Order: sequence, then C-alpha cells, then structure tokens
Amino acid sequence: MLEEIFAPQSVAVVGASPDPSRLGHRVLKNVIDNGYKGRIYPIHPTASAVLGQTAYPSVAAVPADVELAVLVIPPQHVLNVVEECGQKGVRGLVVITAGFKEVGGEGVKLEHQLVEIVQRYGMRMVGPNCLGVIDTVSDLNASFAALMPADGEIAFMSQSGAVCTAILDWSKEANIGFSRFVSLGNKSDVDEVALLQAWGNDPQNKVILAYLEGISDGPGFIQAAREVTKRTPVIAIKSGTTAAGTRAISSHTGSLAGSESAYESAFGQSGIIRARTMEQLFDFALVFAYQPLLTGSRIAIVTNAGGPGIIATDAIERAGLQMAEFTPATISQLQATLPATANVYNPIDVIGDAKADRYRIGIEAALTDPNVDAVLVLFTPQAGSEAEATVEAMAELSANQSKPIVASFMGAYSIKPALKLLNQYKIPNYEFPERAVSALEAMWQHRRWREQPAMTYARFDVDKAHVRELFAQVREAGRVELGEIEAREVMAAYGMRLPDSRLSRSPEEAAEIAKEIGFPVVMKISSPDILHKSDIGGVRVGIADPQAASDSYELIAYRARKFSPNARIWGVLVQEMARKGREVLVGVSRDPQFGALIGVGMGGIYVEVLKDVVFRLAPLSREEVREQLRAIRSFPLLQGVRGEQTADLEAVEDIVLRVSQLVSDFPEIVEMDINPLVVYNRGEGVIVLDARIILQG
Amino acid sequence: MLEEIFAPQSVAVVGASPDPSRLGHRVLKNVIDNGYKGRIYPIHPTASAVLGQTAYPSVAAVPADVELAVLVIPPQHVLNVVEECGQKGVRGLVVITAGFKEVGGEGVKLEHQLVEIVQRYGMRMVGPNCLGVIDTVSDLNASFAALMPADGEIAFMSQSGAVCTAILDWSKEANIGFSRFVSLGNKSDVDEVALLQAWGNDPQNKVILAYLEGISDGPGFIQAAREVTKRTPVIAIKSGTTAAGTRAISSHTGSLAGSESAYESAFGQSGIIRARTMEQLFDFALVFAYQPLLTGSRIAIVTNAGGPGIIATDAIERAGLQMAEFTPATISQLQATLPATANVYNPIDVIGDAKADRYRIGIEAALTDPNVDAVLVLFTPQAGSEAEATVEAMAELSANQSKPIVASFMGAYSIKPALKLLNQYKIPNYEFPERAVSALEAMWQHRRWREQPAMTYARFDVDKAHVRELFAQVREAGRVELGEIEAREVMAAYGMRLPDSRLSRSPEEAAEIAKEIGFPVVMKISSPDILHKSDIGGVRVGIADPQAASDSYELIAYRARKFSPNARIWGVLVQEMARKGREVLVGVSRDPQFGALIGVGMGGIYVEVLKDVVFRLAPLSREEVREQLRAIRSFPLLQGVRGEQTADLEAVEDIVLRVSQLVSDFPEIVEMDINPLVVYNRGEGVIVLDARIILQG
Repeated sequence: MLEEIFAPQSVAVVGASPDPSRLGHRVLKNVIDNGYKGRIYPIHPTASAVLGQTAYPSVAAVPADVELAVLVIPPQHVLNVVEECGQKGVRGLVVITAGFKEVGGEGVKLEHQLVEIVQRYGMRMVGPNCLGVIDTVSDLNASFAALMPADGEIAFMSQSGAVCTAILDWSKEANIGFSRFVSLGNKSDVDEVALLQAWGNDPQNKVILAYLEGISDGPGFIQAAREVTKRTPVIAIKSGTTAAGTRAISSHTGSLAGSESAYESAFGQSGIIRARTMEQLFDFALVFAYQPLLTGSRIAIVTNAGGPGIIATDAIERAGLQMAEFTPATISQLQATLPATANVYNPIDVIGDAKADRYRIGIEAALTDPNVDAVLVLFTPQAGSEAEATVEAMAELSANQSKPIVASFMGAYSIKPALKLLNQYKIPNYEFPERAVSALEAMWQHRRWREQPAMTYARFDVDKAHVRELFAQVREAGRVELGEIEAREVMAAYGMRLPDSRLSRSPEEAAEIAKEIGFPVVMKISSPDILHKSDIGGVRVGIADPQAASDSYELIAYRARKFSPNARIWGVLVQEMARKGREVLVGVSRDPQFGALIGVGMGGIYVEVLKDVVFRLAPLSREEVREQLRAIRSFPLLQGVRGEQTADLEAVEDIVLRVSQLVSDFPEIVEMDINPLVVYNRGEGVIVLDARIILQG
Repeated sequence: MLEEIFAPQSVAVVGASPDPSRLGHRVLKNVIDNGYKGRIYPIHPTASAVLGQTAYPSVAAVPADVELAVLVIPPQHVLNVVEECGQKGVRGLVVITAGFKEVGGEGVKLEHQLVEIVQRYGMRMVGPNCLGVIDTVSDLNASFAALMPADGEIAFMSQSGAVCTAILDWSKEANIGFSRFVSLGNKSDVDEVALLQAWGNDPQNKVILAYLEGISDGPGFIQAAREVTKRTPVIAIKSGTTAAGTRAISSHTGSLAGSESAYESAFGQSGIIRARTMEQLFDFALVFAYQPLLTGSRIAIVTNAGGPGIIATDAIERAGLQMAEFTPATISQLQATLPATANVYNPIDVIGDAKADRYRIGIEAALTDPNVDAVLVLFTPQAGSEAEATVEAMAELSANQSKPIVASFMGAYSIKPALKLLNQYKIPNYEFPERAVSALEAMWQHRRWREQPAMTYARFDVDKAHVRELFAQVREAGRVELGEIEAREVMAAYGMRLPDSRLSRSPEEAAEIAKEIGFPVVMKISSPDILHKSDIGGVRVGIADPQAASDSYELIAYRARKFSPNARIWGVLVQEMARKGREVLVGVSRDPQFGALIGVGMGGIYVEVLKDVVFRLAPLSREEVREQLRAIRSFPLLQGVRGEQTADLEAVEDIVLRVSQLVSDFPEIVEMDINPLVVYNRGEGVIVLDARIILQG
C-alpha cells in the first residue's frame, strides 16, 4: 500500500528553508497549508523554526519517529541524509533533488549508491529528480507544485514533472479532483509497477492514469497490470520511442516488430486502456471516476437537435457500440408524452424548443428501458432551452442508477453555469459528442476485459535439457545462430513435427537415404557457415529417383565449395518432401523492455509484402493465441475460402504455444522464425519446414 | 459572389413583429443592432413602425428598392410573399420559415413551388427552414441567432441549425471570429456548391468550413471544390450515412464500396481537408485563419519541458511531418546563448526555469533557420516561467514572418491571460501538443494539394456509337445485365484487348473454331440467362485437342439444359486460353451522390478476403490513377516481388482510364467488373479475361 509514502504519521522536510524563494520552503509550506494531520518536522542546519514549526538540524535530531522524509537538498548531501534516515528508522523517502541518473556520468553512480542505501534499510523511495507526491486522502502535499488539486478519485502518475504541473494547472480550471498525484522522476525505487500494486487495491482510486515514457520492468508491469485492471481501470499514454537500434534485426520478424508492437501488445494483453492523446487520457478518466461501469454496449441518445444526434450516431457505430433499440413500451410512452414532431426512436429528439421537462421525459424513458445500457445527453443552446434545469433533471434521474450517463453540452458562452453544474453532479461532459462516445467506448473495452474468463496456459512435456545442451554447444563453437540441423533438433525437442531428414556424406549415401525416406525428396547443403542456402543454389526440390539424388549431392557440394571455399561442409541433408498446404510464419523478436514478442502471419507475400503479422507478448495463453490468429487480416485463408476446408487451427495454436514455452524457457533466444509452418486441413496437423534460431550475442 | 444575400443595399424583414417574443422581432433586432449600414424595412400587416424603423404592410408597399428579403412568416404565406418579392425586383431571399421538405407530404410540394417562383424571377434563396445568414464584413446579421460572432476570416456553412447555434456559442467564449456564417437549411436553392463558388473568390474568407450531412450535387461539388481549394483551404466534416440500401449490390465492387468510400474519394480528389471530429474542424480552421501557409514539412519545437517535447515529436512522426534538423550555425548560436543543460537540437529545450528571454532565443533561432518550415512552441507553467512575456516574444518574432507558428500552452488556471493574448495575436493555441501537430498536418496536406501539377485527362478514340446501340438492344430485350459476348463487345469498342473468342453452335463447329484459334482453349456456355457459369459446370479450361472440344460442347450444353431448363442457350464460346499473368480487378459502382466510383485491386484473395481495393471517383486523370494504384496495399505485387519483373503498369492505367471514359460516357452503367484483368510484364500489355456490366434498372 506504500502508506509510508502516501499516509505517513509524520513527515520531515529536509532542506526546509526559512527563505520563501527556496524550493524546500515551498515544499514545507505545501505540507503545512494543505491540511496534513500528522507531525511535521522541518530540518534545517541553523533555523530553530520554519513557518512556525520547530526545526531540527538533522533527521537524527528529531526527538520522535519520522515515517516519511522529503529531501530538497543539494545532491552531494543526499547519500548522507538517506543513510541517517535509514538509521533513524524512516520508512519512506521522497527525493525531489535532481542531479542523478538524468545528468549522466557521476550522477548515475550517485543514484546507484542511493538505491543501495534505500534497499539496505528496506525503505521505499519516490524519485530522485521529481516534483513530489500529493495525496488528497491523507491531505499530504509533499511536492513543490504551485497548486493543490481538489479531492477526487483519479490516481495519476507521471514520468514527466512538467506534465504534472501542466495537468495540475489544467485540472484546477476544469475542477477535476485527484486521489493521488505522483511525479515518478527517475523512479529508481518506486516505479509504475509499485504504484499500480499500491493503488490497485485501494477503493479511493476509481481509476489510475499513467503518463509513461518508458517502462523499467516490462514483464512485471504486465503482471501487475493484469491483476489491477480486473478491479480498477488503468488508462495510460505512452510517449517516446525506444531505441530500436540497440537490437540487431536479422530476421523477418525482427524487422516487422517495432517497439510500438510491444507496447500495443503489452497494454492490450494486460487490460490497460491506451489513450492516444493527452486529451483522451482525461476524457476517459472522467467517465470512470464519475459514473458506474457500463454493463453493455447499447447506447441511447437524447438530444434537442438532429445534427449533433447524427454526429453521435456515426461515432457510436464507428466505435463498435450499438444504438439501443427501445422497447415498444418506451416508444409508446414517449409518443404519448412528447410533441408529435419529436423523434421517439433512438436518438430521442426532443426538438429545438425543448425545455428541461422534455429532456426529463426522454432521459427517464431511456434510463429505465431494459434495452439501454448508457445514456448520452446532447444539448445545443437554443431559444428557450434550459441548460441548468436540464442538468438538474439529469442528476436527479441518474442518482442511484446503475447505468452511466454522459453529456455533450455543445457551446460555452451561454452555458457556463450548466457546465459547472455537470461537473458538480459528476456527470462527465464533453465539448463535442465524438469525445463522449470515445469515453463510453473505453468503458466498454474495460468491461469486456473484466468479463473475460481466466486464461489457460498450456505446459507441454518437452526435452528442455536437450535444448540447453544444444545451445551450450553452439556457444562453445563461438556461434550465435543455430545451423539447420540444430534448429530442427530444438523444434523436435519441443514436440513439433518436422519432415524426416537425414544427413548424407556422399552421393551414394544420399541415394540410399532418399530410397529409405521415399521419393520425391528435397536436398539441402548442410553447413554451419552457409545461412542463405537457396542463394548459392544449395537447395534442390522434387528429386525423383536415386540417380537424381546422387547427382544432386555432387552438384550441391560443388556449388557450396565454389561459393564458400572456407565453409565447413557437413554434408547434404536429404529430406522428406512435405505435401503442399497453407503456409504460416511464426516468428519471435525480443523487445528490450517486454521480452519475447511472438508474431504470426500467413507466409510468403502476406508477410513480406502486406506486412500482415500480428504480435503478442509471451508467455501466451491459448485464448490469447486464438485471438491473435483471428486478428491477422488474412486469417480467412486459414478458415478456408472458395470452398476450401478449414485449416488445422488447433495445431497452429499448439505450435505458437510451444514456441511461447520455448522462448520463455530460454530467454537467450533473441530471434527465431518458423517459416514456413505448413498447415494442413483440420485434423491433419502441421509440419515445420524450416526454422532459424539466433541466440544472444 | 451572392452579394444580394451577403452584402445587400437594403433588407426587408417580412414578419418583423413588434412583439419581442416573436422570431421576426428577433431577426429585425439582429439586423438593426449589429451595425448593418443599408436601409432596413420591417414588413408587418398592421404596425407602422417596429423597433424604431418605419414598417410597411407588404414588400410591394416599400417606397424604394429592396435587395434582400428575410422571411419569418407562417409557411402558408411564403409563396405569395415570394411572388410579390419577385415582382418587386427583390434579388435575394433568406427563408427562415420551416414547414417545407423537412415535414414531408404537402411540405415537399410547397417547397417545389417555392423554388419554381424563385427561379422564375432569377432570385437566389437561402433556406427554407434555416437559422439565417450572418456576414461580419457587411455587418449583416439576418438570423435569429442569440449571438453575433466576432469579425474574422473563417467562413462557415452548416446544414444543421443547431450546430450553428452551438458553434456560435462556443466561438463566442473562445473569441473566434467569422467572416460569414450560414445556416443552409433545406438548401433548395443556395447550397454548398453555390457557397463554395461565392466564397472561394473572396479574400475575406481565409478558410471555408462546412458541416455537411449530405451533398445534393456530388459532381458539381467536386468541380467547385477543386477550383476553390487551389486558392482557399476548405475543411469539411461529413456526418450521417447515406442509405446504401437504395442501390442493388450484385457485384464485387458494389459490395466493397460504401458511401464512406465515395466521400473519402470526393474529399481527397477535390483537395478538401476532412475533419474527423467537430473539434478538428476548428483546430484546423484556426491555423489557416491565423497563420501563413506552411511551405514545407520540417517542424521545430521549442519547449520548457522534456515530456511535452516527446509527445509532440511522436505526433510529428506519426503525422508524416519531419523534425527539422538545424543548421550548424543555429546549433552553435543556441549553444552560445542557452544554458549548458538546455537541449539545442530539436526539440529545443529551454529548461523548466526558462523565462521569456530563453524562449525568445529558441524561437528566433528556429524561425530564422532555413531548415525550418514551422515552429511549435510548447509551454508548461513552472516556477518562474513567464507565460505572457513568452507570448509577447512569440508575437514579436513571428510578425512579418512567412513561417507559421503555433502553440500548445498546457494548463489553464494560471495562464488565462496568456491564452487570451495568444488569440489576440492570432497564434493558434491548442490545449495539448497532439492537436497542434494535427493542425500543421492539415496545413501540409493543403500545401501539397496546391502544389500538385495540373492533371492530364486522356481521351481515347473509342466506338461510342456501337456501345450505345448494344445497350439499346439489351434494354429492348428487357434485360439490365449484359451477356458475356455483349460485355466483350463493349470492352473491345473501348479499345481493350480480349482473348480471341467465337461462338460455336455445335460440337463440330466448336472443334473447328478451336483448331483455328489454336490449342489449348477455354469453353464457356453462352446464354443471357445464366450468369454464374462456373456454378453449373458451364466453363471448361485447358481443352487440348479437337475431340476434347467437341466433347466439351456436348457436356456443357447438357449441363446448361439440365440446370436451367428455361434458359436461352446461344451456344458455347470457344476462347483463346490466355497465358498466366498477375490478376487485377477493375470494378465500377455508382454512388447515388457522386456517380461512378472506380475500384482497383489485385484479383482473387486480395480483393475477396483482404478487401484490398482502392476507390476513386470518375472521371479520373492519369495522375489520379497512378496514385490510386500505389494506394493498394498489395501494389508491390505489381511492382514485382522476389525477383519478378515489374508488371505493365501503364497498360493497367490505360484500362482504368478507358473504364473511366466508358462510365462517364454512359451514366446508365450502374455496376461493372473486369475480373480478372491479366497483367503481363512491362511492355507486354494486359488482357481482359472476363467482364460484367449492369445497366440502370
């Protein structure tokens, strides 16, 4: 719960200066002025009191326990003070001081030492290099922010202090309240994961917002988010691109997956609602903070004008929500009570001259109709319309309602009191109807996520030890890329079916093996040094008889020697020629923050030209793989088009799950492609025709 | 120029009541109160004066010329008054009165009669059923709007009166001005086309905004927009979906093209900037109204915080704009003048404690750098920052600059005076950086449109008369769908290459023809009543010798009789079997508002499964077709992948242009598919393998 940070019994402000121009003064003033109920200790080398509070020369000198220490002192003094805090038994730290990791060089070292001390004493720390922490539940403002936000139920964390100040300033005007407001700074101890875990269990936070530039612990973040989002909506905006240049891109999959795919997958697979813009972050937050959760996707509109009704209807359809269809009872009731020119179907148009009473009729009918899950009220200022009374009616009718109600009162000049009233009654209002619909869409996304059944994770019986051994051999040989035979062995060890394939070392042996396997066969050069076999003519297909097999051996071996005189030639692989089927690619790329990203697409042109690949982060559940396959644009090709039978989808899922298990078992796999995976009709399975694996360099 | 509406010498308000509760009273008051300089004549049956102006019992009774008459009277009196206006020599009408087309039945008839009178006298009319017209250039407010907008350079038209009132109310608060503000109502005379033409030539309108629900004259709209947008930016929002159900969908193309495609194409091909939301409509308008036009896509950012800088950088990359790269001179100058911790590359980060002077350094450097086309200034309220002085610096530096400058001052509460100042200096400001970037993106779109070279329209030498004759025959036979032979004839008449193909009437004749054409051949049933030939086994391919040809005749004819006993069988087509190539679909669907929509995609799975078809409205220029082909996702298949040669793209373009000519020559073609068009390598041409044409029922 991080109570030592958000609800401590006592706070020491280290660097609390009597000089009002100093940051430390402002922090102390913020602690005192905003109603904090605990004990407050200014720490200053010489002052005996600051802002009316008895001051002490050091934390050690405070004649009582100190739970939280806020540091606003030069960076060179931080380590000593933190050490002293540890000895004193301080449990929480907010280090506002800058001059650490963010300045590079010595700062990085200083931060390492800082974290070491913090961990040694089991303390928790926000920062360094941050604006501070605000908690409106415990009335603690331990920050140098110029403004104290209103009470509310939105918890906000930001990696950028400037975004914090901008948001505080903006929310002050919009009168939007917060439960917690944290500037993460360098987040060297308390990071987004710690805050998610701390906030997700506290009903004071109805919704958690995050402004993120990067994530320190991707897998931990996903795991924490998955749990929290089943109870509390989390909305995040991710800005900034990670340095994709740091990883080598040598496979199909690697070049297709960007860090964008990793974030998209991470958010999607952990139920985080992604805001595309800063505006959306708060548009979404309001509806979660102010209204009950949507239980269905059927939206009713009540409006006093046709145009905005059309705009909202369009937006609802585009968002994948539905226009509610009213029951006959609702319709006849509306017909009986609204003027003849009103529209009683959805959108309910109460007509331009409507006063609040007609809105009341429309809203009540919509709210009580069992076919309606949420109500969107549109209002344009017309002659005779009653903005404030309309809001009063909305508030009255929606009180104790389990259905969300949202508003788009269009205009500004003449409806200011109504806008204020809407906020007061916690009815989220949006300047334009499209934004209101987006907010409902976000709510619907969260609802569906919460209702998803628990995921099932397959655990196949595999020969992990053999793979470990193989990888060790490859490394011993000074390589990072596995040869084809080695890659085949890995696949086989993880239970994947491969064509029968054996190594021949002479033309005669090739003919012999081919006879045993059965014609036709495929023959391929086997060398750890030749990666692009086709390019040098090292692959021949459709070999139909023993003579052709022995001829092919000679030709392939000759070409290999000619084009790569220094390559080690192990021989020529003779391989069963698998019958034709649909081709699928399963690839793996490793994201520096989130780990293995598994991509699936139809092989060949679909991947190479149309870039039709869908990525998800490992480890994958069967449900996620199912969804992943269906998200491929060319998925209908697997289902079967033009009278084809359905492909063996379950076998494809199994392969993806086995790959997921493989890359989870072996984080040293940085890239991997199964290309093609040949997929036969339902019940007939799949076969891995070719695979590449690259280990960490 | 529609001066009779926007800048008349005299205005009569018919229905100008002395009773302040009446709409007519309000309209007259609006005319008088907002500074209109011409003569004003209240028309009222009994009053001798209204609001201090001498009143007359009728327009006829006015002892002077009346240029514009505004009607606010019951609908049943409108026809008589308009007739009287015509006789009096009135030139413009604004009919506010409702009760016409929008109420259906008698109203439709009444509106027809109204238009007839208006046209008979050569008058121009806005309405009926509208809010009225406001012109801030001539200070004429001939509307019942509650507010008069400020002067400005934005011209706005709306099909929804309620959207007008909402926008007026909102813009009053934001202090955004307009040059003209028109509620189109039923737009039975003056419509969006007339306004585009009138406004596009007037420098008072720096940007034209349109809220559209439907367009009466699609082709006229496109033509007018194409001209206007070369001078004046037009931003439109389209809401509401057209009833797609009104047209039969029987071809591939028809089912792929929605009315959405038609609007998307119409806007794109005529240079209209499409706003996705009401918010964007005004976000875009501001930058055009306030700033010089962008000449390039290289954007510089000046910020006092890293986070917002990252947000903006991301948005710039997503928008297809570029982050400017400063010249070495700019960089060294910034290094010399900004603190060491500042970032002197793009974004220029003047650091959180920056006052206005540092912003001034950064903005000046960016504005004067030849590698910069526009400057985006980001501001977050920090301790010591000077919002207003920063705006003053921006205004000063950007005065007489040819580069646009836009702002995102984040926050609200503490920066109100700065926000006001930004608007006063006509620096568009956006609450969040992403919206500022979107606005620059819209500007860049407009700029590229304006720089596009003139389009070239091919005009092929074709046998139009033959096609006219063929269509007449088909209609005479009571059909709307052409048989295969007829469709082939149409293609041939428009200069498209087809496989050699002749009709056989007996097994013997089939063998004979096949010998002449050369084996292998394809054979197909020929019947006007059998449309899906393959489904009944009526197509056989790869027929290799005369015996097979005669056998195939028998089999095909037998099947046709068996499955369609009543079908008229003309015989069996014997056709040259074209060699394989890449397959393309060229289809035509007719949109009720915009006419022929030509779709192009790769054939087979790419169209059927991946829906990878791109539509454009006919008539098409070669430049548009080129762009259309390149917009297909699978276009690389035509360029050649995996070592393939490039396809004969020019020959494909020719086919699309010939189709464009055909459907423009014959508007009775409602649907048409060329599927497949077989495309060979560059220089080897294309061949039409199959075609369907459906005429208007």
